[in-house]
Amino acid sequence: MTSSPDTPIADGIPPIASLDAPALSERLTSLLDHKTKPLRALGRLEDLAHQLGRILGSTAPALTAPQALVFAADHGLARQGVSAYPADVTWQMVRNMLAGGAAISVLTRQHGIALKLIDCGVAQALPPHPDLMNCKVATGTADASEQPAMTAEQCAQAIAAGRRAVQAVPGNAVLLGEMGIGNTSAAALLLARLIDQPVEACAGAGTGVQGEAFARKLQVLRKVLARHAGAHAPLDVLAAMGGLEIAGMVGAILQAALERRVIVVDGFVTSAAVLVAARLQPNVLQRCVFSHLSHEQGHRLMLDAMGVRALLQMDMRLGEGSGAALAWPLLESACRILREMASFESAQVSGQTSNQSIP
Amino acid sequence: MTSSPDTPIADGIPPIASLDAPALSERLTSLLDHKTKPLRALGRLEDLAHQLGRILGSTAPALTAPQALVFAADHGLARQGVSAYPADVTWQMVRNMLAGGAAISVLTRQHGIALKLIDCGVAQALPPHPDLMNCKVATGTADASEQPAMTAEQCAQAIAAGRRAVQAVPGNAVLLGEMGIGNTSAAALLLARLIDQPVEACAGAGTGVQGEAFARKLQVLRKVLARHAGAHAPLDVLAAMGGLEIAGMVGAILQAALERRVIVVDGFVTSAAVLVAARLQPNVLQRCVFSHLSHEQGHRLMLDAMGVRALLQMDMRLGEGSGAALAWPLLESACRILREMASFESAQVSGQTSNQSIP
Repeated sequence: MTSSPDTPIADGIPPIASLDAPALSERLTSLLDHKTKPLRALGRLEDLAHQLGRILGSTAPALTAPQALVFAADHGLARQGVSAYPADVTWQMVRNMLAGGAAISVLTRQHGIALKLIDCGVAQALPPHPDLMNCKVATGTADASEQPAMTAEQCAQAIAAGRRAVQAVPGNAVLLGEMGIGNTSAAALLLARLIDQPVEACAGAGTGVQGEAFARKLQVLRKVLARHAGAHAPLDVLAAMGGLEIAGMVGAILQAALERRVIVVDGFVTSAAVLVAARLQPNVLQRCVFSHLSHEQGHRLMLDAMGVRALLQMDMRLGEGSGAALAWPLLESACRILREMASFESAQVSGQTSNQSIP
Repeated sequence: MTSSPDTPIADGIPPIASLDAPALSERLTSLLDHKTKPLRALGRLEDLAHQLGRILGSTAPALTAPQALVFAADHGLARQGVSAYPADVTWQMVRNMLAGGAAISVLTRQHGIALKLIDCGVAQALPPHPDLMNCKVATGTADASEQPAMTAEQCAQAIAAGRRAVQAVPGNAVLLGEMGIGNTSAAALLLARLIDQPVEACAGAGTGVQGEAFARKLQVLRKVLARHAGAHAPLDVLAAMGGLEIAGMVGAILQAALERRVIVVDGFVTSAAVLVAARLQPNVLQRCVFSHLSHEQGHRLMLDAMGVRALLQMDMRLGEGSGAALAWPLLESACRILREMASFESAQVSGQTSNQSIP
């Protein structure tokens, strides 16, 4: 982990410019159209290649030193029993990730992706580890059913921590993930408020809350929304009902977008951070690749609200960045198609019959 | 490429036994259930892990020396103008694949998959190449609108060639793909007859046939079906309306299933070979992983008819095995989840709250 002291650190929310490069865009389309395949025959892999070329500003994009950044924090709302798991699982799973036994550990190891844990607000003190960044803003959020989850200052600190985390790592791509018992509820609350939909459409089973417990979870979420009825601006909503790890991801998304890194988004909770970041700076979406559609029911609604589509649909709902890491090879493939595939001309392959007519 | 002279070579169609191992199956389910994640939170990746464990007969499955086998042949029916590309593209693309410039070349190189081309019936004589197996049965099929595409003997020879191709390569997984101008039409014809559906529901644009040319393609296909109205048994249908490369894949599927190799199926044309093989030996389906749902419209109908679901949906329609190679890392991930993820016990992570109740 190298820090980059010469990278400018703007306070707060940096402006994200549009990737406006029509000449590059046309050149990418033309290159893809001339590869040895029927027109558009690689479907969405071509769209992905085009997007990666635009983000990285190249007709021969190459992904370098990918970094999985997993943001962890605890949630005061978990005391209301909104998760099927006890809050201790947050720090236990951080330990498991660092020890190499979690799904994200396995998948990042498979693909040669560096894995960093960012402690934005885990309740317990975690022992130092070379892959753990200590950015603890608080020992968890406050219970949002009683008061704002974060103060405005805590929220800003967590965003700043996320920006620093990106600045501290090399490479041109980040994969974002999270760990925090209770954070599926926080994500559902952000979604409900930011797109103005009933919580029933936004909240799902999370780690496995079912039956009567799920009905009570919805009751809790409605109470939180009512308590913070006045919060509508994205940062106010984030502070009132979000989480420290979600705020950390908002900062990471903004910083990665500013640096024109490729941002690989995981599932429901990570997408909620993108939703907040996109309300602040809509152009972040140009840099985001949505890795998978979660089994969590609100995710489709969330992606639709942002006008984006995910690559995979594997009925996963784990978080940690596991979907992002699973989809990673598709991004590599898309870049290689641009860099390595022959054209009809270079391979001396005949093109389409003039008018596709039948003799 | 090593031949395996001690592998039994049965003539014709080998019997494929069911993977009946309830104890292994239960053990795999239990192992997956105890990994550090909420129950079923890795969704279809868990189903895939379970299937791979069953095929390879192990609770710690490991994929070794994967082989992409691309079967190539020409089609007499192409003279009726059913493709948007001239027939010369078959041999030109074989040359391109061997030279490393095709999509399948790029994707197999990315993932360390060996690539072999099997010439079952390309019209032109191809120069020798270490990755080309010469199994030419004929210089393309006959025009199925006028006579059977293959004689029964040619069809049997192509099936035997496909079996030999699998026997000649090492490893416990094969990825199947194909190249043959006109073979989307052959696959649509096999589908229409074997599941008894109108050709309109089975045939699509293929490499890009549109408008009036597509209407005439359908006319040609109807004529073929009428000429071979008496063909109903799978091998009769295959010989009458299939292709030499499709017959080769049928043989490869049967042989790989017999050897309990994992069979990674590409798109519409490769799936048509599975459809034929499954009519001969239904248990081959237990060994097949369907990599992607093709953009070609009949593919969904075909997969539904076999009761299977594909991993990816990328709107691809290239063939070559490109979808199989693209999906390959997901199979690796599934195996690693089983082999490398910690359990709740081993990682000392707390389990679910007893009854998910809210205090």
